[in-house]
Amino acid sequence: MTTRSDCLALDAADPLAPLRAQFSLARADDQGVIYLDGNSLGALPAATAARVAAVVDDEWGVGLIRSWNTAPRLGGPRSGQAGWIHLPQIIGDKIATLIGAGAEEVVVADSTSINLYKILSAAMAVSVAQTRSPASARLQILSERTNFPTDLYIAETLAQAHGFKLVLADADDILAQLNDHVGILMLTHVNYRTGRMYRMTDLTKAAHTAGALVVWDLAHSAGAVPVDLKGADADFAVGCGYKYLNGGPGAPAFAWAHPRHVAWMDRAGWRQPLSGWLGHAAPFEFTPDYRPGAGMARFICGTPPMLSLAALECGVDTVLAAQPYGGLAAIRDKSIALTDLFIALVESRCEGHGLTLVTPREADDRGSQASFAHATGAYQVVQALIARGVIGDFRAPDILRFGFTPLYTRFIDVWDAVNHLEQVMTTGEWREPRFNVRGVVT
Amino acid sequence: MTTRSDCLALDAADPLAPLRAQFSLARADDQGVIYLDGNSLGALPAATAARVAAVVDDEWGVGLIRSWNTAPRLGGPRSGQAGWIHLPQIIGDKIATLIGAGAEEVVVADSTSINLYKILSAAMAVSVAQTRSPASARLQILSERTNFPTDLYIAETLAQAHGFKLVLADADDILAQLNDHVGILMLTHVNYRTGRMYRMTDLTKAAHTAGALVVWDLAHSAGAVPVDLKGADADFAVGCGYKYLNGGPGAPAFAWAHPRHVAWMDRAGWRQPLSGWLGHAAPFEFTPDYRPGAGMARFICGTPPMLSLAALECGVDTVLAAQPYGGLAAIRDKSIALTDLFIALVESRCEGHGLTLVTPREADDRGSQASFAHATGAYQVVQALIARGVIGDFRAPDILRFGFTPLYTRFIDVWDAVNHLEQVMTTGEWREPRFNVRGVVT
Repeated sequence: MTTRSDCLALDAADPLAPLRAQFSLARADDQGVIYLDGNSLGALPAATAARVAAVVDDEWGVGLIRSWNTAPRLGGPRSGQAGWIHLPQIIGDKIATLIGAGAEEVVVADSTSINLYKILSAAMAVSVAQTRSPASARLQILSERTNFPTDLYIAETLAQAHGFKLVLADADDILAQLNDHVGILMLTHVNYRTGRMYRMTDLTKAAHTAGALVVWDLAHSAGAVPVDLKGADADFAVGCGYKYLNGGPGAPAFAWAHPRHVAWMDRAGWRQPLSGWLGHAAPFEFTPDYRPGAGMARFICGTPPMLSLAALECGVDTVLAAQPYGGLAAIRDKSIALTDLFIALVESRCEGHGLTLVTPREADDRGSQASFAHATGAYQVVQALIARGVIGDFRAPDILRFGFTPLYTRFIDVWDAVNHLEQVMTTGEWREPRFNVRGVVT
Repeated sequence: MTTRSDCLALDAADPLAPLRAQFSLARADDQGVIYLDGNSLGALPAATAARVAAVVDDEWGVGLIRSWNTAPRLGGPRSGQAGWIHLPQIIGDKIATLIGAGAEEVVVADSTSINLYKILSAAMAVSVAQTRSPASARLQILSERTNFPTDLYIAETLAQAHGFKLVLADADDILAQLNDHVGILMLTHVNYRTGRMYRMTDLTKAAHTAGALVVWDLAHSAGAVPVDLKGADADFAVGCGYKYLNGGPGAPAFAWAHPRHVAWMDRAGWRQPLSGWLGHAAPFEFTPDYRPGAGMARFICGTPPMLSLAALECGVDTVLAAQPYGGLAAIRDKSIALTDLFIALVESRCEGHGLTLVTPREADDRGSQASFAHATGAYQVVQALIARGVIGDFRAPDILRFGFTPLYTRFIDVWDAVNHLEQVMTTGEWREPRFNVRGVVT
């Protein structure tokens, strides 16, 4: 059995250990916080405060409206392009390098839900355009029953509006449901509750073979696991800025479409439904008729929230900083080691307390999280842990969810967290009434 | 003719003068900047930097995910409700007091364009629900030809998607076009180019008499002119956070619907198309089926960008701070005085240089801006002024636009700005080639 000393040794030998200094965790550490919720809200990068302050004090306060043209750039791609106006594409280019997409293929905008609305609209338009005859129309959107609800809600609305039907299947039945009625397979790469990860290349290939397009939601994968959208020949993707990309609460999200589909959009003059002025081909001509911007620029809608965008860039930079240390492959290796250790420690030290692993045991089938079910006390156990400083998530109805961000999560954090969990379970502390008070957000 | 000394005296006697200290303008002042572009991006409130820093350093950095439930509140309505999750409604309640709406009637979310997509969808649904027979269907959305383009683009998309037709008319012909085909009249209260302001009560009454609903875009009115949505019996409204509300670049926007329509939405179970998880009746139950939140809560979509929201609240607070000084009535009085003075000075001192007033001369018909046309050199004149520190806007094809924010714009600013303009025009400085270099944003 791994000991606490073993964990200290693992941390000492961890090649990614220096990257933890990129985050402002000293005060949380002093309070004894063990943060296993970076898959809900990534920790604060040390660079963010100064960067946001510069945007506020200098770019907004002194540059004022001129900063849309003149605000200086951070380093990285397109570093020569001054001005806030370029930031959605600049950050998009940075995220592209983390998900196997090319330059100018990713835009940052709005929220994941809103980007899915645009991207799923695009997928439906491409699917319809590929239909050779009414009889061969593929009017099903296939998704997983336990997909993150916002994906299902958006798909449900769009399906109803456009004569499609949303069909839900259990994760294990997705392949069997890929028939010639399915136009679009829409999946979240890593399930938010269970942490189960689809094999993107295999699923995409199966969908294509069956004649369907694939939309991937990378909310729980971008920055956490290697993603190769073009290598997998994926069609569309969206993702979240505030989880493993450390962009801050409610950070803007991103959207990607394969260049073959973007080329079709350009040829067809296709417009996404949220046809706001900044996605126009020439926004500052202020013409009364909408003309979509070329390429991915059409997926921008209104004026982007610059303070939140600036923080997102700092967050993305923390992941890019792993490049010299082995990048996402090294992050993934550590993620598997952390989750393997967590699972092994919980199963051995909390045995007999009703905790059942719901995350796949096979590392290839899981993201950077580990979830356990507890039939009667999942909420209370999570609250009791939080009271001890061990921050994870409860996910209704019965899931305890723990996220591991290799950029800052240490092996010692895993050990100490399980130690607290064992105490919470063995003492029965979690049954105290104070741990059953419900907050608005749970 | 008003002299510079007269302007100094006007500033000394200005009851709103103390409110200028709410803004971080010292460095811009030191650089000789005269900022007449608060209608594009409001100036930085002095409180914003510390508030955003607290959100970043304390609420995110230390509170981490817990801050959705526990982040402390600023003062104001619902000040007892801790947690980021309440901020869209808390700021909405504050904005409500500036636009004649009630508590829980305004939500802050997304961008103006996206909110218009939701609100116009609602207006179309209400209009259709009110139709007694197919023969009496009102399938026109009537708007102004020179409305801000994003409004027209969004309306064009929604009209096409739902079998409506967008009909554009000149401002003077709106009343004449209100026939029994018009289901929705969609207008921006103050025109972004000309500064022309519609008389909201009269237009709304005329539209209702003709059987149409009215959607008002308050982008250039909220915080600048008194707005009384319920007094005018308006139906729907959207507005912008980063102009006269001083919320910062790309600040989130707001949406309002009259309670009679919200009551219908509740009865009908109507869902807006951007059915994201945070607009769900119980987001944290994570149910697979969408069930819209009650009241205006349904208009929220994804996770809100907290850094930008926090800055928006500081901006809104700068307008609320005018309450003891006479509030929006006093702001309006000063706005009229500033714009009257600007128009009079430009027309007398720049006479013969081709500048033609396009803003209505009648104060009741104009917002807090003054625009002049210049047939050949509008862009260059604006650039020459910016080089001198006088920041206004060019709006294609021929408009020089100047915004006046009574919270921080002084009479001396008006005088000095016109003095620069006179010099730019009389010396012919604006014809220098360097002033014809186009930026991305103009």
